[in-house]
Amino acid sequence: MLLERELADLHGKEAALLFTSGYVSNWAALGTLAAKMPGCVVLSDALNHASMIEGIRHSRAEKVLFKHNDPEDLDRRLAEIDPGRPKLVAFESVYSMDGDIAPIEEICDVADKHGAMTYLDEVHAVGLYGPRGGGVAEARGLMDRLTVIEGTLGKAFGVMGGYIAASHALCDFVRSFASGFIFTTALPPAIAAGAAASIRHLKVSDAERLRQRDRVARLRARLDAAGIPHLDNPSHIVPVMVGDPVLCKRVSDILLDAWGIYVQPINYPTVPRGTERLRFTPSPLHSDADLDRLMTALTTVWAEVGLMKRSAAE
Amino acid sequence: MLLERELADLHGKEAALLFTSGYVSNWAALGTLAAKMPGCVVLSDALNHASMIEGIRHSRAEKVLFKHNDPEDLDRRLAEIDPGRPKLVAFESVYSMDGDIAPIEEICDVADKHGAMTYLDEVHAVGLYGPRGGGVAEARGLMDRLTVIEGTLGKAFGVMGGYIAASHALCDFVRSFASGFIFTTALPPAIAAGAAASIRHLKVSDAERLRQRDRVARLRARLDAAGIPHLDNPSHIVPVMVGDPVLCKRVSDILLDAWGIYVQPINYPTVPRGTERLRFTPSPLHSDADLDRLMTALTTVWAEVGLMKRSAAE
Repeated sequence: MLLERELADLHGKEAALLFTSGYVSNWAALGTLAAKMPGCVVLSDALNHASMIEGIRHSRAEKVLFKHNDPEDLDRRLAEIDPGRPKLVAFESVYSMDGDIAPIEEICDVADKHGAMTYLDEVHAVGLYGPRGGGVAEARGLMDRLTVIEGTLGKAFGVMGGYIAASHALCDFVRSFASGFIFTTALPPAIAAGAAASIRHLKVSDAERLRQRDRVARLRARLDAAGIPHLDNPSHIVPVMVGDPVLCKRVSDILLDAWGIYVQPINYPTVPRGTERLRFTPSPLHSDADLDRLMTALTTVWAEVGLMKRSAAE
Repeated sequence: MLLERELADLHGKEAALLFTSGYVSNWAALGTLAAKMPGCVVLSDALNHASMIEGIRHSRAEKVLFKHNDPEDLDRRLAEIDPGRPKLVAFESVYSMDGDIAPIEEICDVADKHGAMTYLDEVHAVGLYGPRGGGVAEARGLMDRLTVIEGTLGKAFGVMGGYIAASHALCDFVRSFASGFIFTTALPPAIAAGAAASIRHLKVSDAERLRQRDRVARLRARLDAAGIPHLDNPSHIVPVMVGDPVLCKRVSDILLDAWGIYVQPINYPTVPRGTERLRFTPSPLHSDADLDRLMTALTTVWAEVGLMKRSAAE
């Protein structure tokens, strides 16, 4: 209850509801909302996370995909739906693979125009964005535009668990009907207390957010200087592009075995073929020495597997 | 990895795979196995837990219900299925609402006869049954008869998380294909270490199991002496029957507000109408004084809401 109050306050909502993970919160909340509103249509961003996709699939509600981060396409799709049907627009703020950020205001404008509810996944943003760590919607002053804000305690907050923040009525509704909420065990008290302490700290301390931004900028500058290609984006996620699934796995293996650096290879089907990558997310605790070591490792491995030549040739 | 090795050893299996909860382990493992084996039919006990039901539903595989704890009905159902199709029999050892225990050996015999795989949920049994806490299948020497044993770290082991124990190949298969495993965050290290310590302890210490059995027997005897009706069963679950949803909720509220005793009311749809109940599970740490206080509270509340007369009249 204390933790749910912290979370409701964080997102400027009446209430919050805790789940065992961010995955379960998306699956259970979307699965319940879309299933229980008769005739509901879910408008789902084409790059939504697996947990949202599974939740929508589980609801058996009609799903309409809209082009990634494209409010105009969303507008066209919504215009084709019977105005009398309940509609729910489900999207994310920071997308974890490309690190791009949704045009939240424009999407909310389009949703409002068509009387649609909005469901925003801020899993990769809570703690990291906004003056109190409320996410991108807080940073942009848009929290009141969202019907539901979903987040996790397992990333920036450093513990475990997921949640939704919304109206009392909506949280009570999900609490009463979501199988994935009712028939499972709650978070252990120590985890809940740790999460509450972490949220409270990040509501008043900006030092970690500023330091992370500095670390991200520095990593990007070092990658540029070394000629290692990475996706440009406005977030803290730095996707280093390899473009080959076998090489991607090999680079990851060498980094772990020879350098003790763990970076997951991200291959198809998580990302499209040809865009295989390593995903870096510098933390406030990464030192200059850590970055030096990473760059030495990366440039060595890049040369070793022949990626340097590729980059140069492109 | 260390924790997964403890779990594989606990159940006499080659491998184990961790999930964020018991619910997720059932949902993800059954959802993946049943979906990915072409033509698979799942034979599901009629009283299986919500997490198994949702997992089977999620797989979109054909589901055939068999009568609760009825190997003969299972035999008939299996006989009607094309022998060439993969078949998976999903059931529990201890059923949480009635506290009854499955005829595991007979169900495995029937499954073997028809070449079906077996999936046993030991969530309410791990830690509590078997010389090393491996569950009812361990207590009965049947662990090798099960294709998959599923359990939780959130009940007897006192932490959080769920798992399956099975062959290397099966665990790798689920690891590679289960969305609910891949796209979520792992258990925090402190939780995993706590669970491993708990499992290790209960592998060698029988004191807690013996003490719990004593507490359960004592509670049953006290309820009998007080004329408070409860379901007889061979497990540690003591369902105290109220038989009325409004009274059931009222008794639970009074116990919490006036006595500081928290017992959840269990009403329809979790149990059939007319069998509304309070579910007691005495722990090894409940003292004689705790039992005295509980019985004083129960007999007082029972008289207060008029349940004593009902019981006497029946």
